[in-house]
Amino acid sequence: MRTIIECVPNISEGKDRASIDAIAAAVRGVTGVRLLDVSSDASHNRSVLTFVGDGPAVRAGVLALFEAALSRIDLRSHRGEHPRMGAVDVVPFIPIRGSSVEQCVALSREVGEEVARRFGVPVFLYEESASSEKRRNLADVRKGQFEGFSEKMKDALWSPDFGPAAPHASAGAVAMGARAFLIAYNINLGTRDLTIADRIAKAIRHLSGGFRYVKAMGVELADRGLVQVSINMTNYRKTPLHRVFDCVRSEADRHGVPIVGSEIVGLTPAEALYMAAEHYLRLERFSAEQVLETKLLEEEG
Amino acid sequence: MRTIIECVPNISEGKDRASIDAIAAAVRGVTGVRLLDVSSDASHNRSVLTFVGDGPAVRAGVLALFEAALSRIDLRSHRGEHPRMGAVDVVPFIPIRGSSVEQCVALSREVGEEVARRFGVPVFLYEESASSEKRRNLADVRKGQFEGFSEKMKDALWSPDFGPAAPHASAGAVAMGARAFLIAYNINLGTRDLTIADRIAKAIRHLSGGFRYVKAMGVELADRGLVQVSINMTNYRKTPLHRVFDCVRSEADRHGVPIVGSEIVGLTPAEALYMAAEHYLRLERFSAEQVLETKLLEEEG
Repeated sequence: MRTIIECVPNISEGKDRASIDAIAAAVRGVTGVRLLDVSSDASHNRSVLTFVGDGPAVRAGVLALFEAALSRIDLRSHRGEHPRMGAVDVVPFIPIRGSSVEQCVALSREVGEEVARRFGVPVFLYEESASSEKRRNLADVRKGQFEGFSEKMKDALWSPDFGPAAPHASAGAVAMGARAFLIAYNINLGTRDLTIADRIAKAIRHLSGGFRYVKAMGVELADRGLVQVSINMTNYRKTPLHRVFDCVRSEADRHGVPIVGSEIVGLTPAEALYMAAEHYLRLERFSAEQVLETKLLEEEG
Repeated sequence: MRTIIECVPNISEGKDRASIDAIAAAVRGVTGVRLLDVSSDASHNRSVLTFVGDGPAVRAGVLALFEAALSRIDLRSHRGEHPRMGAVDVVPFIPIRGSSVEQCVALSREVGEEVARRFGVPVFLYEESASSEKRRNLADVRKGQFEGFSEKMKDALWSPDFGPAAPHASAGAVAMGARAFLIAYNINLGTRDLTIADRIAKAIRHLSGGFRYVKAMGVELADRGLVQVSINMTNYRKTPLHRVFDCVRSEADRHGVPIVGSEIVGLTPAEALYMAAEHYLRLERFSAEQVLETKLLEEEG
């Protein structure tokens, strides 16, 4: 698998096991798709599917998902704690290997157009695929939810990027778009002083003058007697882990505080770790092709 | 593929394309085996196959290799520049993931016993699998080569670990054993003074008091106006890249010389790079299971 794109659709069904299984099976049955995970939350009444493949496989996977979900989910009777506007609520496309954000933007447009045409569901492009700044943030797009979408879409500001000018009767509308892989990364400081973690979070986050692709806040780890700079790395290719780590170290030094450790919460692409190794070992001409496991993944064709 | 063992058999045929292809096809045809590379050298009259799989798959791959090689290679008419004692000359087993050197030693013994029993070829265990220190070094085991092996094996010191007390008429004998993955790693210094690279090589190599799993020498890079510490990392799990890099940096500092860069020549297991990232980022509780690509490799079962 030379190209790996991750797709993480959220569907508005988190209780009915038979429906969730049927929808997952539809995705799993697509040639070239690997379904890695299905997480359901009953109180949210929502499930998140994680699958990967190259562009054509992911496209086919999303279409299979819509086909299965639209016949099983009716938002008119849907109740759950999580805000939603569609049976298939949001479909993010994330480049992992051999693909760029730009290519995933193109893919989201292509798949969005096809979804609108084939299923009559209005499609809103969001995040990197957004057609205007107003549509970049998912919360803004989703505002009003399923119940308010007929009214919302009457405003020309909220005409869809693809598809009909009104929501689908049972399936509502969907947000689709490309975004970079998000790494949850925390750095632990050898102090109980939360104000230091807060100050460092402020120093590194985009909002207050820091790195473009960093969100951060200070958190107390009472049980360990430490504080933590809790970070969302929203684009590890452009703002890499090692650069943020070194910046935090420098800021912590200035307070006379050591870095006790750091942690990656959940998944990371291998590339993020290769970049750190490459930086600190000062590797020249390094390529992921030199990694044995890369060859194994490619062998599959 | 949860367990990945690499097997790199060397066979005494490097010219006859039909034979090489047939032997490669026999290995490729084994379920669970991935043949990653076949490199042939006509003047050596020798080919190196690289394949991976879990223990049972690698075992089946080696048996298929012997079956195909013994019917096509007759050492009585073999000429080539590279020393050799067998039609299948040497079979190294290398743990990559989910396997230890110890487990590969056990695998080499199991496969060696089966090869001896099924094909009547005497098997000598070498490297980590060696039954005595005298047999650890492949060059010592191979000394005398095919033509001298009848005589050599009359000495009780050179009775085989498995199989008959005399070489196979056409296939000679084979060395089999476990060894760690070897990473070729070079560190470039910002000076033209070769004596500094030599001194640092001496400081880090096992032979002269350095790290247990490091071989190193100084090399001149005339075209770049630099010198290089050229390193073979013979066990990156026990002597990791980052520890050697930091030691070289410290020694270079003492000479007032900067590290310009480093390079990995050829392949590396992903783990070696994860270990460097883990070290420098001070990662806590990191596991390769957190890497998305690991999940992809495991999905295949």
